[in-house]
Amino acid sequence: MLKDYAKSEIPSEEEITRKLKEERARLSGFQLRIKEAGLPVMVLFEGWSAAGKGAVIGKVIRNIDPRFFKVAAMDRQPNDEEKRYPFLYRYIREIPEAGKFRFFDTCWMEEIVDGVVDGRLSGEEYRKRVHSINVIERQLCDNGYLVVKFFFHISKKEQKKRLKALKSEKDTSWRVDDDDIKQNKHYDEFMDVFDRYLTDNNQSRAPWYIIDAENKRWAELQVLEFLNQGIDIALQNHTANVPILQNIFPMDKPGKLSDISLSDKTLTDEEYDLELNRLQKELAELGNKVYRKKIPVIIAYEGWDAAGKGGNIKRITAALDPRDFVVEPIASPEPHEKARHYLWRFWTRLPKTGHITIFDRTWYGRVMVERLEGFCTENDWQRAYNEINEFEKELSEWGAVIIKFWVQIDKDTQLARFTDRQNTPEKQWKITDEDWRNREKWDLYEGAVDEMLEKTSTAFAPWHILESVDKKYARIKALKTVIDEIKKVL
Amino acid sequence: MLKDYAKSEIPSEEEITRKLKEERARLSGFQLRIKEAGLPVMVLFEGWSAAGKGAVIGKVIRNIDPRFFKVAAMDRQPNDEEKRYPFLYRYIREIPEAGKFRFFDTCWMEEIVDGVVDGRLSGEEYRKRVHSINVIERQLCDNGYLVVKFFFHISKKEQKKRLKALKSEKDTSWRVDDDDIKQNKHYDEFMDVFDRYLTDNNQSRAPWYIIDAENKRWAELQVLEFLNQGIDIALQNHTANVPILQNIFPMDKPGKLSDISLSDKTLTDEEYDLELNRLQKELAELGNKVYRKKIPVIIAYEGWDAAGKGGNIKRITAALDPRDFVVEPIASPEPHEKARHYLWRFWTRLPKTGHITIFDRTWYGRVMVERLEGFCTENDWQRAYNEINEFEKELSEWGAVIIKFWVQIDKDTQLARFTDRQNTPEKQWKITDEDWRNREKWDLYEGAVDEMLEKTSTAFAPWHILESVDKKYARIKALKTVIDEIKKVL
Repeated sequence: MLKDYAKSEIPSEEEITRKLKEERARLSGFQLRIKEAGLPVMVLFEGWSAAGKGAVIGKVIRNIDPRFFKVAAMDRQPNDEEKRYPFLYRYIREIPEAGKFRFFDTCWMEEIVDGVVDGRLSGEEYRKRVHSINVIERQLCDNGYLVVKFFFHISKKEQKKRLKALKSEKDTSWRVDDDDIKQNKHYDEFMDVFDRYLTDNNQSRAPWYIIDAENKRWAELQVLEFLNQGIDIALQNHTANVPILQNIFPMDKPGKLSDISLSDKTLTDEEYDLELNRLQKELAELGNKVYRKKIPVIIAYEGWDAAGKGGNIKRITAALDPRDFVVEPIASPEPHEKARHYLWRFWTRLPKTGHITIFDRTWYGRVMVERLEGFCTENDWQRAYNEINEFEKELSEWGAVIIKFWVQIDKDTQLARFTDRQNTPEKQWKITDEDWRNREKWDLYEGAVDEMLEKTSTAFAPWHILESVDKKYARIKALKTVIDEIKKVL
Repeated sequence: MLKDYAKSEIPSEEEITRKLKEERARLSGFQLRIKEAGLPVMVLFEGWSAAGKGAVIGKVIRNIDPRFFKVAAMDRQPNDEEKRYPFLYRYIREIPEAGKFRFFDTCWMEEIVDGVVDGRLSGEEYRKRVHSINVIERQLCDNGYLVVKFFFHISKKEQKKRLKALKSEKDTSWRVDDDDIKQNKHYDEFMDVFDRYLTDNNQSRAPWYIIDAENKRWAELQVLEFLNQGIDIALQNHTANVPILQNIFPMDKPGKLSDISLSDKTLTDEEYDLELNRLQKELAELGNKVYRKKIPVIIAYEGWDAAGKGGNIKRITAALDPRDFVVEPIASPEPHEKARHYLWRFWTRLPKTGHITIFDRTWYGRVMVERLEGFCTENDWQRAYNEINEFEKELSEWGAVIIKFWVQIDKDTQLARFTDRQNTPEKQWKITDEDWRNREKWDLYEGAVDEMLEKTSTAFAPWHILESVDKKYARIKALKTVIDEIKKVL
């Protein structure tokens, strides 16, 4: 987990300042709702020595009324008294009460990791303890607790620098002990043990958030964002039928549809023809390579009605050997499909190795049309973000190339194209009353799409935006993206 | 899991016949409710070769309308076509639709176990696949599926005998192939791999049931009992707030309160004095041993009002060094306790190693008074059976001796004692209006107690009944039980 952790780039100082302001306000705004809902919030801080856990805890609690939180400093081995109880005992004693926060300055992870590194815990004992922790965390969640877990991550170099700085200062040198030095010296071995634990204990009810802690304000912002997101979900779970599970995968930050500039994304006919020709040739070759190397490719199209999905797909397939690909147009599910897990009809349409399947509309219908038309419960679509990420993770682990396109146009462009379809006899079949009805819900859909992009742009299956007011531009960008993504695995 | 599997003794032929009749009727009775609830039921049969999976499947389906079930025969390695999809693909294709059964004659376990034994799967690949299976099983349950998993267990000797018998018969010899012979030859290695998988994949949403398959009718009965119990829970989960998890621990069969004969459980004063004296001496010595060996002991008392808990506890404590034990009378929780996980107030009252804590009433209040007085939701107390088993498992893994007493009297005896308390000034403090109110709910409580005994008599923390119409008898039995249980660990 720690090893394949994709570090996302640090926002500008201004952006950090702006967002810190937002998230701090959001957290203190949550206080009362947490109290009213009687939600106990348990926040675990773990990570490398000198990663700045304490400093961030100090900043986070400033946003909370002192009556509503306590900090539990557990950053020490159990004393002789505590050793005479189950290892969980001293932590469980500290769990928060309903409506209050409890911040753990290191928790059960630290004790176990040290045990493994010092050789005090056998592999079997380690497995037992991780199991016990997974059980108690699940029990806490089932009984209405929010459990949020942060791992503060810094590089070996950064840690060394910080330890040195602390040591050199008279009034901080006491904070550096031999264990810290040892950890930096054996950074890689610790990395292995951390990574194993984070993976074994990474549960969707209580996921691990890796915090990039090289920059302190950025670290605070990440903590606040994840904490607020967790609180948001937990407050919903108080009425949820099945608990909404949190994302446990590294995410890209895609941004909102409204931030996408469209007008400047155009191509002349000359540029287009030239590029199209060149790129289709290239894709044709790659298609053969993919076939020979038995790599499965999944291309998923979502986008507004009349955004130009069909024409875009044609430009991809035109380059491919008809025996190697299939296009799957996804309409509303058949009765025998509706009667099964909503991902079943996509599982059964997967390409085999060496083949390419292009989905014209996809499993994301769950969090768009099914959400907005009420075809599933709120709990179903809320849960779906995590389930879909798990589904795509499974496919990427299998070795599939996953390319997800959102084809974007603005509302006026859609109107123009609808009207054109209406008035052109040979295009009329393309426009239905439903298209007009959906159009009326544009804003609702835009909100759902933004949430979808935010919650399903994983590092292993990110979304790609195709700006399609100029369809030529979108087609070229699609071809380029497919080519780049395939190249990555060849 | 397979290794510490405690084989419970086979009922008499008559009892098997009687219960088979019941459970078969119960299953076919469930059919329509399953259809109405739209519950998809997925039943996995795994286990040793020649353990009789197919035979039992054949019997189970006789109780179900052919339109409502299919059998998926997956007992083979994936073919070349299937190898070109994710390993889950060929199984997921077979999942049942809403309201129907699908019986898998071996499923993803078999493929993985073979891969490990043949060395085709590395440790890392094994872990990944188990993780994928845990995720998909969780997703299926979250989306309303019932997943029931049976492992058919027979001894090496029995397997050898059956393979030989099959081989010798002309028309069955084809059913024995080299892999079966190999499995019997390397029985212990297979045992290791099976055990590891069953442990790694034993989830409370989809637990593993080990079926003792040495006797075929007994095997069928176990399957029907677990299947019906799973269906029962799944039908409740359709309206559950948080899914009710199923028991994943080996159970004792305790029987019902109404089956307990009381009148014949008596002692003369002479017998009593003699025994009491002898046993208290013995317990005193054991108490010291426990202290020196640093073994924690937990004695839990539950029982009817006026059953004689207090006097019974006194006879135990009288034998112990006051510095080594504490009695915890459990009343309704304080506000600061109510505000936390309901087991918190018991976690924080645990004995330390070498000490003995006697709980006068316990965490089982959750599934008795809190259930019947509506102090928690149905979902809360339904979930509690599993949570309590997990709690006690944690304590027994820690090394604690756990002794659970149910102090049993009949309704008339209680009335006599209530009246006596009423009419004896120095006893009046012992009787309250609440006692009388509870007494009116005797039958409700008896039902709750029977369910509690059935669902929490685990192999590691079974219930002991103290027949207490003759309090002398109950006290002696309590002393003997405590002595026996402590001796087991010394």
